[in-house]
Amino acid sequence: MNQSYLKMSSEELKQQFDAVLAEYNEIKSQGLNIDMSRGKPGSDQLDISNDMLNVFVDGNFKTEAGFDVRNYGLLQGIPECQKLFAELLGVKPENIIVGGNSSLSLMYDYVAQCMFIGAGFTPWSKQGKVKFLCPCPGYDRHFAICESLGIEMINIRMTSEGPDIAQIKEAVKDSAVKGMFVVPKYSNPQGITFSDSVVKELAELTPAADDFRIIWDNAYIVHDLSDESDRLLNIFSVLPERNKNMIIEVTSTSKISFPGAGVSCLASSEENIKEILKRLTVQSISYDKLNMLRHVKYFKNADGIKEHMKKHAKILKPKFDAVLDTLNADLSGLEIAEWNEPNGGYFISLDVTGGSASRVGVLCKEAGVTLTNVGATFPYGKDPSDSNIRIAPTFPNPEVLKQAVKVLTVSVRLACLENLIK
Amino acid sequence: MNQSYLKMSSEELKQQFDAVLAEYNEIKSQGLNIDMSRGKPGSDQLDISNDMLNVFVDGNFKTEAGFDVRNYGLLQGIPECQKLFAELLGVKPENIIVGGNSSLSLMYDYVAQCMFIGAGFTPWSKQGKVKFLCPCPGYDRHFAICESLGIEMINIRMTSEGPDIAQIKEAVKDSAVKGMFVVPKYSNPQGITFSDSVVKELAELTPAADDFRIIWDNAYIVHDLSDESDRLLNIFSVLPERNKNMIIEVTSTSKISFPGAGVSCLASSEENIKEILKRLTVQSISYDKLNMLRHVKYFKNADGIKEHMKKHAKILKPKFDAVLDTLNADLSGLEIAEWNEPNGGYFISLDVTGGSASRVGVLCKEAGVTLTNVGATFPYGKDPSDSNIRIAPTFPNPEVLKQAVKVLTVSVRLACLENLIK
Repeated sequence: MNQSYLKMSSEELKQQFDAVLAEYNEIKSQGLNIDMSRGKPGSDQLDISNDMLNVFVDGNFKTEAGFDVRNYGLLQGIPECQKLFAELLGVKPENIIVGGNSSLSLMYDYVAQCMFIGAGFTPWSKQGKVKFLCPCPGYDRHFAICESLGIEMINIRMTSEGPDIAQIKEAVKDSAVKGMFVVPKYSNPQGITFSDSVVKELAELTPAADDFRIIWDNAYIVHDLSDESDRLLNIFSVLPERNKNMIIEVTSTSKISFPGAGVSCLASSEENIKEILKRLTVQSISYDKLNMLRHVKYFKNADGIKEHMKKHAKILKPKFDAVLDTLNADLSGLEIAEWNEPNGGYFISLDVTGGSASRVGVLCKEAGVTLTNVGATFPYGKDPSDSNIRIAPTFPNPEVLKQAVKVLTVSVRLACLENLIK
Repeated sequence: MNQSYLKMSSEELKQQFDAVLAEYNEIKSQGLNIDMSRGKPGSDQLDISNDMLNVFVDGNFKTEAGFDVRNYGLLQGIPECQKLFAELLGVKPENIIVGGNSSLSLMYDYVAQCMFIGAGFTPWSKQGKVKFLCPCPGYDRHFAICESLGIEMINIRMTSEGPDIAQIKEAVKDSAVKGMFVVPKYSNPQGITFSDSVVKELAELTPAADDFRIIWDNAYIVHDLSDESDRLLNIFSVLPERNKNMIIEVTSTSKISFPGAGVSCLASSEENIKEILKRLTVQSISYDKLNMLRHVKYFKNADGIKEHMKKHAKILKPKFDAVLDTLNADLSGLEIAEWNEPNGGYFISLDVTGGSASRVGVLCKEAGVTLTNVGATFPYGKDPSDSNIRIAPTFPNPEVLKQAVKVLTVSVRLACLENLIK
């Protein structure tokens, strides 16, 4: 256990500072160039799914019902892919729209539709100011959708069980509050899975806005790191009739098969599906059904996907462990940082309590390690306490990763010591 | 040559009517069920591209620059696919965004962006009424985009050289007129290729609106039926500097490789590309780059695509000939219908001058042949003269096609005779 910086004398802090600065300069001189900015799978993970690209050697391009997936049609997706996602999400196949390669597009297009066409009522944009609740730290691309569409964002505190329900209940009394994005399982970046109680409370919200929507971005639905996986309550199973149109769930195979060449889906109520299809029938003739059938032929069913995910976990677990081991060895006991130990997902969230996260970002960058932009995990890129750092350990190989995390811990210590001795 | 109905006596017309009615009833009794409603390739056309699905047996997933297409990134598309489309369209690769499986989505998303985010100026939707010019007969899905986004449509007459330029010049004096969709080569449904003069006149328009856009839907760019192909002037080559942002060209491989599983692209000015990427970076992380590389590996270059198209022509030419032969045999000389003989594209356009097209649609439907909804080739589904019928000859096999066109010509004659003897 390291000695707490907070209990050191000025003299001891000065000695620490000199030692850490020397260590930092030594690392900096190595001329590293490591990118830990995004949740990108490593190339060994990509190889896992290569066989999927050969499933059509049998020359069979038809669905069970005899539809040739190489031709136009089936706007809602091929039935067997609807079924696959329905099984994974615990909903009925008819409540699924199978999308293209990007669940982000499904979300953007849906929120834009609510803004300019409406969610069962007058378009949001014609009702005055539009606000979204943003549990944070959170996913920067959710915030970017809001910002680009002119939606005002309101920070909501995250607890270890999910977003702060009391704060949400208060906020939804304002009818200008039209929605929120959440990542309910292995949240980005903290890896928090919402408790049953939080899921139920969200399902039973009584927002002032009749057209309030929760975008349930279940991006990490099967992305467990080990057998000790978190279990997320199916929100549709506890949704009261009055809120039946409130949930828009999305997920994709981006981090199951290929990022950018997977298949996404959206699940919602019959009414919402109808509204979305009404727009979609103008926007497209169909999504890529060859890719849908490719995935169905390869995975077969939800169990097939879950088995497949064990191969990813086998690669990712040592990477997460490497980060956590280094954080533990270098930072525990210093009382200058806190972090989580997630059971899945793609990130580790580090909170720097003794210095500024933005200073850590600069120090890392100067030593050749690119982190996710500090601040990006908050709306408008502004972390009010300048403390959160998102660590994306998946892309670098384990050796490089260890170097990168070393740069990070040394930078955290240095930034904190700069603060303490000034 | 048939005798003109217009020169027949009442007695002769009555005899004709009885004979044609008997023929119609005979056909009706056969219980046909033929769909000629959409421009769908036949399954023999789909087979042509099957080998494309095996290009990754070499296990090489990298671009020339070493980027792994299985992972996130490259929002604008892989460079070799930008190059492929650039060669096809005669523009620079940097002016290309490679899209997903649907050029329709590229168009919808762009027009929606102009409406709600703006085309370099205040969003169209905030400038008051928004109008589009619609050369017609035209493509129903273009009209659907306008209608769904609340854009008022103004009919523009088509001539044998393209849309009526005088009418367009007059219409664009209204600053509420913000754009138009055109299919400049083998137009849908008439198969007309715009003359050089029309292309130049369009390029040199002086619209009152600074944010006027022409969506240049070059869907049939290489879709020739024989060596006697039409040649379309590259509009970018004659575009004056003041109109550099006026053209948004799109095309796709939907009818080259697989409909719904091809690759689309958009070509425009540097400024427009920047504006679109700004939205796209929020809407998606990237389009499907595996599919881009799949197409590049298979086609190699523009010549590869053109060679490939000869295989489609070999299948399609006999189908077009079968339709034209039957139209000629059954309708020429009667003076009740006119049609075109296109050198490419996906449609034959029939104008019924002696009866109502909608009556023909009903008669065909009752005899088991589904045509494109009569009226669909005009804005709001309303053909002012109720004369245009779009024939989509590509999907049925030649034998079935002959039956279907027979139903059509008998229906045209019957509808006309009903008119003449009443």
